[in-house]
Amino acid sequence: MSYNNFLYLLNDALSKQDIALALDSVKTFKAADLADILAQLPLENSQKLLLHLPARAYVFSYFKPEEQVKFAHGLTRTDLAEIMGEMPSDKRVDLFKCLDHEQQNTLLPALAQAEREDIRQLSSYVEGTAGAIMSSEYATLKPNMSVKDAIKMLRYEAPDSETIYLAYVLDEARKLLGVLSLKQLILAEEQSNISDLMATDIIFAYFDSDQNEVAKTIARYDLLALPIIDHAGVMVGIVTHDDAMDVAREEATEDFLKSGAVDASSKLSLKSAPILQLYQKRVYWLVFLVFGSLLSGIGIAHFEDIIAANIVLVFFLPLLVGSGGNAGSQSATLMVRALATGDVQFKDWLYLLGRESLVALCLGGTMAFAVSILGYYRGDLMVSLVLALSMMGIVLMGCLIGMSLPFILNRLKLDPASASAPLVTSICDATGVVVYLFIASQLLL
Amino acid sequence: MSYNNFLYLLNDALSKQDIALALDSVKTFKAADLADILAQLPLENSQKLLLHLPARAYVFSYFKPEEQVKFAHGLTRTDLAEIMGEMPSDKRVDLFKCLDHEQQNTLLPALAQAEREDIRQLSSYVEGTAGAIMSSEYATLKPNMSVKDAIKMLRYEAPDSETIYLAYVLDEARKLLGVLSLKQLILAEEQSNISDLMATDIIFAYFDSDQNEVAKTIARYDLLALPIIDHAGVMVGIVTHDDAMDVAREEATEDFLKSGAVDASSKLSLKSAPILQLYQKRVYWLVFLVFGSLLSGIGIAHFEDIIAANIVLVFFLPLLVGSGGNAGSQSATLMVRALATGDVQFKDWLYLLGRESLVALCLGGTMAFAVSILGYYRGDLMVSLVLALSMMGIVLMGCLIGMSLPFILNRLKLDPASASAPLVTSICDATGVVVYLFIASQLLL
Repeated sequence: MSYNNFLYLLNDALSKQDIALALDSVKTFKAADLADILAQLPLENSQKLLLHLPARAYVFSYFKPEEQVKFAHGLTRTDLAEIMGEMPSDKRVDLFKCLDHEQQNTLLPALAQAEREDIRQLSSYVEGTAGAIMSSEYATLKPNMSVKDAIKMLRYEAPDSETIYLAYVLDEARKLLGVLSLKQLILAEEQSNISDLMATDIIFAYFDSDQNEVAKTIARYDLLALPIIDHAGVMVGIVTHDDAMDVAREEATEDFLKSGAVDASSKLSLKSAPILQLYQKRVYWLVFLVFGSLLSGIGIAHFEDIIAANIVLVFFLPLLVGSGGNAGSQSATLMVRALATGDVQFKDWLYLLGRESLVALCLGGTMAFAVSILGYYRGDLMVSLVLALSMMGIVLMGCLIGMSLPFILNRLKLDPASASAPLVTSICDATGVVVYLFIASQLLL
Repeated sequence: MSYNNFLYLLNDALSKQDIALALDSVKTFKAADLADILAQLPLENSQKLLLHLPARAYVFSYFKPEEQVKFAHGLTRTDLAEIMGEMPSDKRVDLFKCLDHEQQNTLLPALAQAEREDIRQLSSYVEGTAGAIMSSEYATLKPNMSVKDAIKMLRYEAPDSETIYLAYVLDEARKLLGVLSLKQLILAEEQSNISDLMATDIIFAYFDSDQNEVAKTIARYDLLALPIIDHAGVMVGIVTHDDAMDVAREEATEDFLKSGAVDASSKLSLKSAPILQLYQKRVYWLVFLVFGSLLSGIGIAHFEDIIAANIVLVFFLPLLVGSGGNAGSQSATLMVRALATGDVQFKDWLYLLGRESLVALCLGGTMAFAVSILGYYRGDLMVSLVLALSMMGIVLMGCLIGMSLPFILNRLKLDPASASAPLVTSICDATGVVVYLFIASQLLL
C-alpha cells in the first residue's frame, strides 16, 4: 500500500467515525511520524484522531509551533488543557508562548495548579537562554538515601521525568549537591549511601547562560543532560541531549542564512511562509548592499577618463573585481565557521591575519599569472602588467577584508556571522574597482 | 591561580618527575578538559602524565586525530596497544586508520585477538556510512530471559558497553529481535519475560546508510542510540546520540564552507593547517569562478559601443549586476539549507519556483523603484527606465537561478550545497551584464 493510499484510507475511516480502525492502522507508527501524518489530514479528522491517540501529548509535542497553534484553536478548552497537562514541560511552555493573549487567559484556569505555576516560571526566562529551553521534569534524590531506596524513588519519579538515567542530588533548599547516573546505581551495592556515590564535580549551566553555550557544553562532554541552576546554586531544570541537538541545528541554520545575507531572526519555512514575510527577510539586506555597489559606481565614475581611453579595461573589470569578492567570501566563511565551532578565538586575529596574508599571496600569484596571459592576448604587455598587479592587490585586500570583517563586527557587538558572502563581496567589489583603476591610471596614462 | 600559572606548575611538576603532585592537581578535571591541557604541555611531559591518568584511554579519545597520531608516535608499542585496548571501539578504529602503514603493522600483533578482529571489521566500512561511525560495544540480551537476569546481565556488560540504557535483544544468529530500555527494566516486575517487554517496532539503520541520514534519524526520534544492522538483519553496532551530534556538526561545517566556495572534503583547522593546504582548498574554486567572470567580460565586450556612447551605464553596472548576484545568493542559501534540514524536497521544485517568482517580483520592484530615482538624478528619464526594467529582470533571473541551481546540481549527481554564493554570484553577474546592456542597447541607441 502506498503512503498516499494509506492516508486516503485513514482519512476515510475517520470521516466515517471508525476511530478503532483508524487507531489500529497507525498503531505501529512512532510519535514523530504520527505528527507528520496528522499534519497531512484535514484538520477536523486529524483532531479526531489526535484526541484518541494513547500518546497524544507526545505526538502533539512533535508538531511545528504553527501547527500546534492551528490545532489548539480547534480544540475545546478542556481537551487542550488535558493535552498540555500531559506534555513535557519545555514543550508545554513553548506552545503557551505561541498562543494569543486571549487564549492564554481562557486556558490558564483550566490547567492544574502545578502546571500553571510551572508555565509561569518557565515562561519568565529570556528567549535564547538555558532557562527558555530547559525542562522542569527531572529526577531528584536526597543525599542520605541508600541505593535501594534511590532506585525505588526513581521508579516512582519515572513517569514525570524527562530522563531517569541521570538523577540530581539536592539538599533541603534544592541546592544541587551532586549527580548520579542510573548506571552507577545499578552497579553499586544496595546498601551504599548516595552521598558517597554521587559525583560532586558537576558540569552545570546557569539559567541565563546562552543556549548555544549550553548546547556546546553538552556536545563537548557527551552529556545526556545538563543541570541548570540559579545564581544561588538552586536547581531549576535540565536541558537534555536532544534539545541540545535542536539548538545546534537551529544555530547552524541561522549562521547559514546569515552567510547568504538572509535575515535569520525568525524561523520561516521556505515552503509555507507567506510571500510577504519571505520578502521582508531579504529586502533589507538587498537594499543595504546597494550602498556597497554605489561605492563601486562612484569609483568607476571617478576613473571615467581612463576607462574611455582604454575600453579594454571594462572587459576585465568583472573578472578582477569578482576574484577579490570570491577570495574575500572564502576567508570570511572560513573565519565565521571557525569562530562558531570554537576552532579559533578572537584573540587569534593577528596570528590568523599573518597566515591569511601568506595564503592570499599564493592565491593572488596564481590568479595574477592566469589573468596576465589573458591580458597580453587581448591587450598588450602594459595591460598584462596592470592586470597582474591589480589581481595581486585585489585578492590580498579581499582576503584581509574577509578575515577581518567578522572580528570588526564582533567589536561592534554585532554577530560575526553577519559577515556574509554578499556583504564581503560588496565591500571587496568597491575596493577592487579603486585598486584596479588606480593602478591602470598610473601605468596607462 | 590563573590558567597559565596552573599549566606552568603542572609542567614543572612533571619535569621534576613528581607524578603524584601532577595527578593530584588535575584530578577534578573532566576528560575533555584534560585532553585540552595535555595538548598544551610539551609532548614529553604530556605523555608522562597521560600514561598515569586513571581514565587515560578516555582522555586520549578526546584528542583531535592529528594530536592522537602525534602522541601515538611517541609511545612505546606496548603502551599504545594498552591505551588502544581501553578506547571505545569507534574511536580506536578512527585512530588506527590515521596511523601510517608501518605503524599499523607493528601495532597489530601487540593488540589482543578480539581487538584486532574488531579493528579489522570496523575499518572495512566505507567512510561516510553508518558503519564507519558506529561502535561495536553495546549491551545485548536474550529473548527468554527474566527481567532480574537481564539486569544482572547488564551489570556484567556495563564496563564494555557504550551505554546500558538501551539493550538489544538478539537471537542465536545475532539477528535483532527487539529493543528494551533500562527504564523499562527498572519499572517492570522482576519475573517478567524480556520477549514480552521488548519493543519490536525497532528504528534502525543499515551499515551502509549515509551517516547524515543516521544523525537525522537520531535527532528526529530523540534517540539515545540507533542500532545498525546488515542486510540479513544481523546487528553489527550502534551509533550513539553524541556521535550523531558530531556528525550533524561536521555536516553543517561542510555545507557552510561550500556556501563560501571553499573545498570541504578534508577537515582542516584554520589555525594549524599548513598554508599550502589552505591554498589548495580555495584555489580550484577561485580559478573555476574566473570563467563566470570571463562570461561577464565577453558580455561587456559585445556591447562596447553602447558603453562608449553612454559611459553613465558603467556607473550603474556594479549596482545592477551586484543586486542580481545578491538576490540569487539569498535564494540559493535558503534553498540549500531547506534541502539540508529536510524542510523541502526536490519534488517541490516547481511549486517553490512559483513562490520564488512572486518574492522576486516584490524584491525586484522595490529595487527598481530605488534605482530609477538614482538613474533620473544622474542621467535622464530614458536611463531611469532602462535601469528600472533591467533591475526587475536581473533580480528575477537571479532569484530563479539561485533557486534552480541546487536542483540542477542534484540532477547532475553533485552536492546541492556546492551552489555557493560565489558560484551563484558569478553566474548571475554574467546574466545580469547581458540583460542590462541588451535592454540599454534597445532603448538608448
